[in-house]
Amino acid sequence: MDQKASILSGEDRLIDRFFRPLVKDAGALGLFDDAACITPPAGHDIVLTVDASISGVHFFADDPADLVARKSLRVNLSDLAAKGARPLGALLSLSIPETVSEDWLAAFSHGLGADLDQFGCPLLGGDTTRTTGGTVISITAIGTVPHGSMVKRSGAQPGDLVVVTGTLGDSSLGLELRKRPDAPGFAQLGDNERAHLAERYLLPQPRLATAEALRETAHAAIDISDGLVGDLAKLAAASGVAAHIEAKAVPLSAAARAVLAGAPERLETVLTGGDDYEIAAAVPENRLAALKEAAKEAGVAVTTIGRIETGNSVTVRGPDGQPLALKRASFSHF
Amino acid sequence: MDQKASILSGEDRLIDRFFRPLVKDAGALGLFDDAACITPPAGHDIVLTVDASISGVHFFADDPADLVARKSLRVNLSDLAAKGARPLGALLSLSIPETVSEDWLAAFSHGLGADLDQFGCPLLGGDTTRTTGGTVISITAIGTVPHGSMVKRSGAQPGDLVVVTGTLGDSSLGLELRKRPDAPGFAQLGDNERAHLAERYLLPQPRLATAEALRETAHAAIDISDGLVGDLAKLAAASGVAAHIEAKAVPLSAAARAVLAGAPERLETVLTGGDDYEIAAAVPENRLAALKEAAKEAGVAVTTIGRIETGNSVTVRGPDGQPLALKRASFSHF
Repeated sequence: MDQKASILSGEDRLIDRFFRPLVKDAGALGLFDDAACITPPAGHDIVLTVDASISGVHFFADDPADLVARKSLRVNLSDLAAKGARPLGALLSLSIPETVSEDWLAAFSHGLGADLDQFGCPLLGGDTTRTTGGTVISITAIGTVPHGSMVKRSGAQPGDLVVVTGTLGDSSLGLELRKRPDAPGFAQLGDNERAHLAERYLLPQPRLATAEALRETAHAAIDISDGLVGDLAKLAAASGVAAHIEAKAVPLSAAARAVLAGAPERLETVLTGGDDYEIAAAVPENRLAALKEAAKEAGVAVTTIGRIETGNSVTVRGPDGQPLALKRASFSHF
Repeated sequence: MDQKASILSGEDRLIDRFFRPLVKDAGALGLFDDAACITPPAGHDIVLTVDASISGVHFFADDPADLVARKSLRVNLSDLAAKGARPLGALLSLSIPETVSEDWLAAFSHGLGADLDQFGCPLLGGDTTRTTGGTVISITAIGTVPHGSMVKRSGAQPGDLVVVTGTLGDSSLGLELRKRPDAPGFAQLGDNERAHLAERYLLPQPRLATAEALRETAHAAIDISDGLVGDLAKLAAASGVAAHIEAKAVPLSAAARAVLAGAPERLETVLTGGDDYEIAAAVPENRLAALKEAAKEAGVAVTTIGRIETGNSVTVRGPDGQPLALKRASFSHF
């Protein structure tokens, strides 16, 4: 019996058509093996992270598939960036319902391929399975750092400055705008501002361009995925310190400023909403200039928003100078 | 605002209770960081594989949660074993419906922990998310091999023997028995035989104990997950060779022999049913004794079932000496 035709089972055909064209790294063995094989650079550690994106939980079922793929990859690259790591590759575990269309898969693989190229992160392997529920995209990202240099959550020291990349709150405001477009603060927004917030929700910007500088300057860092206050609390707890930040120092886009002008209470969304995929870091004062300079060359703003002190809490001083009482520190799906 | 209480969001509590107790490797950073960090052994390559197990597709929703966890890990360890790799660690991406019970999670984490210990595969990290559908368990396994020594699917050479570990068909017969207990061949089975088949479906045995010997003796190997014939066809295609096997040489358990005695047509299930998680390898004749000896010490049988030849097909000679015509070569969920 000649098996040449019949070895092309359903899953193999799907991989052939949509995922094998994305493979450029020899370590992936063309997705033609049980496993990928990579030779890590000598003297380097391997940094590993996995995050799942689920239809109806992390993205809307009708979101464009190319953006779903890109965001699913980028949330993992953001973790690598916050650890000061350079991407070595990614594994894709894609679980899709039988009803998924070829158009959706084509757009998904196109978006994924574009971002793998953009961020220099080769596809190494994966698994494609059918699910009885909605789509589940689980991506494992593998990175490298020179031995012993990964930037951890622990390591922040009293006296360090608390800094963040980019602007915060855009993504969570973008999600709010999408779910409740008539909610306070959104009525006055112009089209560009609406588009900015919407796009920041759909397509985060992993700060890989600042990873090396972060490794050279930061005592500790975390990617802001669950909300600034909650994620800073995790960094503070891991480091055994307190973090005190000023709400009015938190960097905002023009669109976010416009929302807060109309609805000041939305400051809480900015501070705790999550999905920012920016980096919060504890940086000693004498290294701040070096970090800012390197980040500026990469086109990324770095803003000081507070300071690490002794203690075991996170305090946010509000615009009126008084400590803010927040309803929740961070976002959780549970 | 003191965040000590509120940083324990739902996901954090769940990790605290069910997964942090499994962590024993420092590289996992206690699951308290954005990523894991491991120092690969010098002069070694990293072997990476990911496989998802989905409720209603790969396992039954009412399967014992500890066995679901163990099989989900083991199917990945089987890939490492087939590549000759030693486990370095695993990442768990667990997506669960809101309706999952604490008992299920407790049993799941207990089973996972037991197998992580048994196979020397530390938990390095993961992600726990809510899903709108059924449970999806995606595990990434990371292994190591001395540089350049991973056993690939390619590399089989004409003249090599085709060998397999263990016995084949038990798992797919066990699944059949569960779905259609009155089907031909099952009526005469004793309780022990039924239990054997059922257990082989629920709990595969990854052949990590033979990984080193495989690396030292085999030209090529594949783990048998989709069915012997289909997986051998993949090995043959990757190697640019043909594989010819004898159905009557395929090693069978007493239970499988009893089924075939009553229903000889079930040979096709044995050859193409999948879920075996045994290893098929192409081994030069002069190294077979070394492989068998090492495997025997590990308590694993290695059986010669055929030979690699020039060409590009897989043929199975049936018990009557004639080539078998199989309806399909392997199992696919698509």
